[in-house]
Amino acid sequence: MNNRVSDRDVDLLIHGETILTMVPGREIINNGVIAIKDDSIVFIGKEGHLEKPFNAEETITADKSLVMPGLINSHTHAAMTCFRGMADDLPLMEWLNEYIFPVESKADGELVYYGSLLACAEMILSGTTTFCDMYLFEDKVAEAAKVAGVRAVVGEVLFDFPSPNVKSHKEGLEYTEWLINKWIGDPLITPAVEPHAVYTCSPEFLMDTKKLSDKYGVPLIIHLSESESEVTEVKKKYGKSPVYLLDSIGFLGKNLIADHCVCLTEDEMDILKEHGVKVAHNPESNMKLASGVAPIPELMSRGIAVGLGTDGCASNNNLDMFQEMDTAAKIHKVYRRDPTVMNAREVVEMATIGSARVLGLNDKVGTLEVGKKADLIIINMDKPHLTPLYNIYSHLVYAVNGADVTTAIINGKLVMKDRRLLTIDEDEVMERVRQIALRVKGSLDLS
Amino acid sequence: MNNRVSDRDVDLLIHGETILTMVPGREIINNGVIAIKDDSIVFIGKEGHLEKPFNAEETITADKSLVMPGLINSHTHAAMTCFRGMADDLPLMEWLNEYIFPVESKADGELVYYGSLLACAEMILSGTTTFCDMYLFEDKVAEAAKVAGVRAVVGEVLFDFPSPNVKSHKEGLEYTEWLINKWIGDPLITPAVEPHAVYTCSPEFLMDTKKLSDKYGVPLIIHLSESESEVTEVKKKYGKSPVYLLDSIGFLGKNLIADHCVCLTEDEMDILKEHGVKVAHNPESNMKLASGVAPIPELMSRGIAVGLGTDGCASNNNLDMFQEMDTAAKIHKVYRRDPTVMNAREVVEMATIGSARVLGLNDKVGTLEVGKKADLIIINMDKPHLTPLYNIYSHLVYAVNGADVTTAIINGKLVMKDRRLLTIDEDEVMERVRQIALRVKGSLDLS
Repeated sequence: MNNRVSDRDVDLLIHGETILTMVPGREIINNGVIAIKDDSIVFIGKEGHLEKPFNAEETITADKSLVMPGLINSHTHAAMTCFRGMADDLPLMEWLNEYIFPVESKADGELVYYGSLLACAEMILSGTTTFCDMYLFEDKVAEAAKVAGVRAVVGEVLFDFPSPNVKSHKEGLEYTEWLINKWIGDPLITPAVEPHAVYTCSPEFLMDTKKLSDKYGVPLIIHLSESESEVTEVKKKYGKSPVYLLDSIGFLGKNLIADHCVCLTEDEMDILKEHGVKVAHNPESNMKLASGVAPIPELMSRGIAVGLGTDGCASNNNLDMFQEMDTAAKIHKVYRRDPTVMNAREVVEMATIGSARVLGLNDKVGTLEVGKKADLIIINMDKPHLTPLYNIYSHLVYAVNGADVTTAIINGKLVMKDRRLLTIDEDEVMERVRQIALRVKGSLDLS
Repeated sequence: MNNRVSDRDVDLLIHGETILTMVPGREIINNGVIAIKDDSIVFIGKEGHLEKPFNAEETITADKSLVMPGLINSHTHAAMTCFRGMADDLPLMEWLNEYIFPVESKADGELVYYGSLLACAEMILSGTTTFCDMYLFEDKVAEAAKVAGVRAVVGEVLFDFPSPNVKSHKEGLEYTEWLINKWIGDPLITPAVEPHAVYTCSPEFLMDTKKLSDKYGVPLIIHLSESESEVTEVKKKYGKSPVYLLDSIGFLGKNLIADHCVCLTEDEMDILKEHGVKVAHNPESNMKLASGVAPIPELMSRGIAVGLGTDGCASNNNLDMFQEMDTAAKIHKVYRRDPTVMNAREVVEMATIGSARVLGLNDKVGTLEVGKKADLIIINMDKPHLTPLYNIYSHLVYAVNGADVTTAIINGKLVMKDRRLLTIDEDEVMERVRQIALRVKGSLDLS
């Protein structure tokens, strides 16, 4: 046998009625195949164009279905699934001080592990194959993601004050460096450095975190200008807005991912663009917490990379990226009284290759093309709420929901087939989280 | 046997781990039963409190589930499922003039029947048990709703100009009166009189429609102050805003349901309150068409009845009332920068008994209590995205989606069990609508 023939031996072959590649110029392939070998896509296109058919270990026929890149959640706090619906519709400071901070002060590795594993189950079930996390005990998040087989960017949240996991600046930096060394080079996990925000980290500490991210060439991630109150507080303390402060100390750069960016001036957007900063947009959380509407069309028109995220389950309260896409498309239309902004295709791009660019993973994932990692999902389009079909992007954004995803493949490995999770025992994980929730309830004296 | 014992013979008995009645003061019943005889609820509460158990034809055990009133969609154009995703993200006038009006000019009874039946399938599958419709060939909508077993308010849309179904004012009023006489008193169908809007119906014609609705005591339904451009156009033509114009001609009254109500002044809200006008809120459509954010908290604080609706599938693009609830809760928070407005309980109320009040059906449906019609749904809560459970209302609004509904009962009859539709052949209906969509595509020269 020659190379050509042995190349026909693949691990997994997917016959797709419709394949959405998200590769410009050849976005949609009808009746095509995707061949996967090890962790990567080795062929995508019309099988009829091949001299010989593939010889696959496993074949999936996606009739009446759409095959597309897995969705990429560019900002979440996965373990906050444990607090889903615990405290809603409250004033921000009451929500934080009387609920979120008290329960987080008692968080431990077990809560973070099972909360993250539950989040992975939910994400797979709703079509997300990569998430970017910021939380406590982040090594446990990485462990959960590995068990689930979900791609993740992980970084310990760092403050000026002690957290349940790291008691000081020094411990935070040491833990983060340990986390980086443990996970760097892992096929699924990308470690990151994650100072919480300008109002919770001193300028000196922020620069220490930046140095650490530069040392290892890993992402630097921060909440930035999420609300007017943040901007006001930072201006009062430093005489500058968060963006101007970060610019003045030399914190901004190409490795920086800024979460939220709700309250930005035109000048601040220019500064972010100048430094190559990337942005994670979380419209549902910004709505639920009443933070505001991020100037996403303005950021995109400057060529700033923007990805989509759900934020944590305390402020959303689910991790369904399809619902997030729907909201992302609609909120900017009503906010500007212009039904043409944020069209469906732009939103699908934001949730796939857009998020991949933000996370620095666009060489690996975000589109379906030869050489990329095989991270993809199959959506059953044979449903009343997806009938008829005029436009794939419109359906994905305005009509599909997470429960329409039937199958998910991450890094070449099947993690869900016909809505059955293959890497996670969901009953066990749900039961563990219910037990954790009882403790949380007890600690808050909720009845 | 005495009466007490024979009363124990019922048609359907539901054992519910959690029953959300939406009856103030006894909203949540844990481990209770609902007994249904013919079309009505004859018992709801703890079975242990009864002397003898029920003897039921059929029993459903809703373990790890929530039983609640079916959702009530207070405004839609069901048959517009046929145009779902046909034209999105366009300027309003281009969308209307180049897509919606041309395809509607070719609509016929077949399109309306199968489009409505598809909508019924989608609504049942996502937990809606009643809808209020406004469209063409409305007798076909009533027929589809009857076949599906879905409760509906139906009324032919009436304009100053001819529609594909009625060619003149006279024909429109005659058709409507015929529709009323055909359906009035039907256990599922409530006929209504439905002039389209102030900018499409002359004041004289509007008053003719009002007289017809008064003659039969049926709802009068109109699109009202949906956008700034409507208000501007009406002011230019009549020197008055839509609300002031309707007030001046004597159109406003307790039987009036006003859809949208996005652009209202404080004085106009007072006028609506004074006349007992009721409002259908459609936040997703208002966002997608960039119409604006309706002043719902202000309407509710005046004691005006407000229900929730999805609008048609050309401007949403699905009929999932759970997603609509999520949006209704979030849009008002961000619009006012106040996370406490439109709390989850208020939103669930809006989508159940609130919508029932708007449609004048609150004596029949909207809550689960003895004497009401048995319109209820069962939601499977044993899912990762619904774990853990701290607060039922938070879950229903912020985490549940339509696909979590497993079972639906309308007017005492099972219409879906374990996600299998019992009244509709969904494959056939989807195929019919796909064929209709091919013709729609052809007529628009879409490729």
